[in-house]
Amino acid sequence: MLLGLAPLLPSAARTQAGGDPLPSWRDGPAKRALLDFVAAVTAEGGPDFVRPPERIAVFDNDGTLWMEQPIYTQLLFILDRIRALAPQNPVWQEDPLFQAVIAGDLRAAAAGGTAGLLRLAGAAQAGNSPEEFQRIVTGWLATARDHRWSRAYTQLVYQPMLEVLALLRARGFTTFIVSGGGVEFVRAFSEETYGISPHQVVGSTFAVHPGEQDGRITLNRQPQVDFVDDGPGKPVGIARHIGRRPIAAFGNSDGDFQMLQYTTEGPGRRLGMIVHHDDAEREYAYDRDSHVGRLARALDEAPRRGWSVVSMRQEWMRVFPWS
Amino acid sequence: MLLGLAPLLPSAARTQAGGDPLPSWRDGPAKRALLDFVAAVTAEGGPDFVRPPERIAVFDNDGTLWMEQPIYTQLLFILDRIRALAPQNPVWQEDPLFQAVIAGDLRAAAAGGTAGLLRLAGAAQAGNSPEEFQRIVTGWLATARDHRWSRAYTQLVYQPMLEVLALLRARGFTTFIVSGGGVEFVRAFSEETYGISPHQVVGSTFAVHPGEQDGRITLNRQPQVDFVDDGPGKPVGIARHIGRRPIAAFGNSDGDFQMLQYTTEGPGRRLGMIVHHDDAEREYAYDRDSHVGRLARALDEAPRRGWSVVSMRQEWMRVFPWS
Repeated sequence: MLLGLAPLLPSAARTQAGGDPLPSWRDGPAKRALLDFVAAVTAEGGPDFVRPPERIAVFDNDGTLWMEQPIYTQLLFILDRIRALAPQNPVWQEDPLFQAVIAGDLRAAAAGGTAGLLRLAGAAQAGNSPEEFQRIVTGWLATARDHRWSRAYTQLVYQPMLEVLALLRARGFTTFIVSGGGVEFVRAFSEETYGISPHQVVGSTFAVHPGEQDGRITLNRQPQVDFVDDGPGKPVGIARHIGRRPIAAFGNSDGDFQMLQYTTEGPGRRLGMIVHHDDAEREYAYDRDSHVGRLARALDEAPRRGWSVVSMRQEWMRVFPWS
Repeated sequence: MLLGLAPLLPSAARTQAGGDPLPSWRDGPAKRALLDFVAAVTAEGGPDFVRPPERIAVFDNDGTLWMEQPIYTQLLFILDRIRALAPQNPVWQEDPLFQAVIAGDLRAAAAGGTAGLLRLAGAAQAGNSPEEFQRIVTGWLATARDHRWSRAYTQLVYQPMLEVLALLRARGFTTFIVSGGGVEFVRAFSEETYGISPHQVVGSTFAVHPGEQDGRITLNRQPQVDFVDDGPGKPVGIARHIGRRPIAAFGNSDGDFQMLQYTTEGPGRRLGMIVHHDDAEREYAYDRDSHVGRLARALDEAPRRGWSVVSMRQEWMRVFPWS
């Protein structure tokens, strides 16, 4: 099973870099597991063949497709928005969580976990339509820069994972993002950055209320989170949005555990893959003790569940597209 | 604007029936509006050009793609399920709505409206996973027959609308169903019947609870409806699931009013189309006074909103694929 199968791939997958569809991946166990899986499920007449409509692959976003350290990019956006909107919302001064944000105390702001993050997220964008909100996110992404690399966040995506997306699509897969982040936040850049259409993004959501103004339909985003697409929420989001169990799942944290589990517990050939951030020099090194992207249970159970753990340090020749 | 534009269409749309992509449509105002719209939004360099990712078209299902008289097909399924499950659920005997169903009193069962329908729907399928439920629906559809034509319900789809779906897809559109029906019910046949993938079906949903049994993920459908994709719910469902405002919408009842409104109020060239059931001989004739698929406000406002009203009797040469 660990033979390099790249030479066996038909031409659609061999259009990049002289036949290797994964040029940024070193020839290690993860690359072999990937190519082996793709070859198996696309081999017509073979025992593991999967017809194209059922070739569903799901990807976590934060820490799997783009960087999530030292803090989630969406949280940085929310903090900027809260600070910008604070003068118009004096009631926020009475809430410790908002006080922390306005004071720039990121540690206190992050201590609220996913629930705190989503409460801030709701407040930071309530009262807009989904279309207006996406424009706000797009505008923010155009100017915001990561401190360590002075790069736009949409440049801090993982080149090896872009190659996986391209390979799978070339082999008839439909690729989805299944993110704990807000669905409209991710949609603001998913098409341009990953080639993933808005309708192929599953994420956490806020209540949206329909109304009418001057005889026209309005959609108003409410501050209440009504679905958290994280942990056990991910299989629920997949079932509701995609309506089909994926055959391949890519994650990097315990928030992806149930998505990996749901995917790989289905019948037939499956692929579960975990990006392990073990490269402090080129990116970050973190797992069990991280507040962001904690990876413990999934790392412990990966061997017996047959999930591949990708060592970023050992298996990725390149991390970012520009590096 | 009402010139026949079929001769101007590029080859992709002219593959059927010797160049006419809509062979079951008589050369009337609706067909001309359709072809005119498609030509305009796909003309590169033209003032109305829309790039392919934004070519989103949404279709109601009941009464727009398939028959909804004398009663919604999903309700027939639910009635069958309720009767089959009644012996295991003695508590249903104390509920007037369930009593009516078990007694076969369809009028009383239908009087509960959408809320009643969805309560019955929840009870009829609670406790299954989405995958199990789809298998149950598929099994039912394989044997259930409409009384008037003795045909499977998946054969009671409108040939002219199948041609619209094919035309739009050939011209780079992505086609979605946006149904008041349960999303998993529609997904059970959408791919085979319409060529629409499960993830391109938006519909009403029941709460789904994740759990674990024998160390494996379980998803349990609850009897509580948590989203009604009808009327003002349709733009909400579109925004949440598709994440982009459609440029074309097809409906047949006031339950589609807000979807048509949301679609056609966007900037640029838009198409809103209403299937008007005025053919008692070949199908059914109903609008203002119908309990199923009531069409009044949308019919009244169509002219000033620029929506095309399709006379089934006058503009469809064929109704069903087999007729």
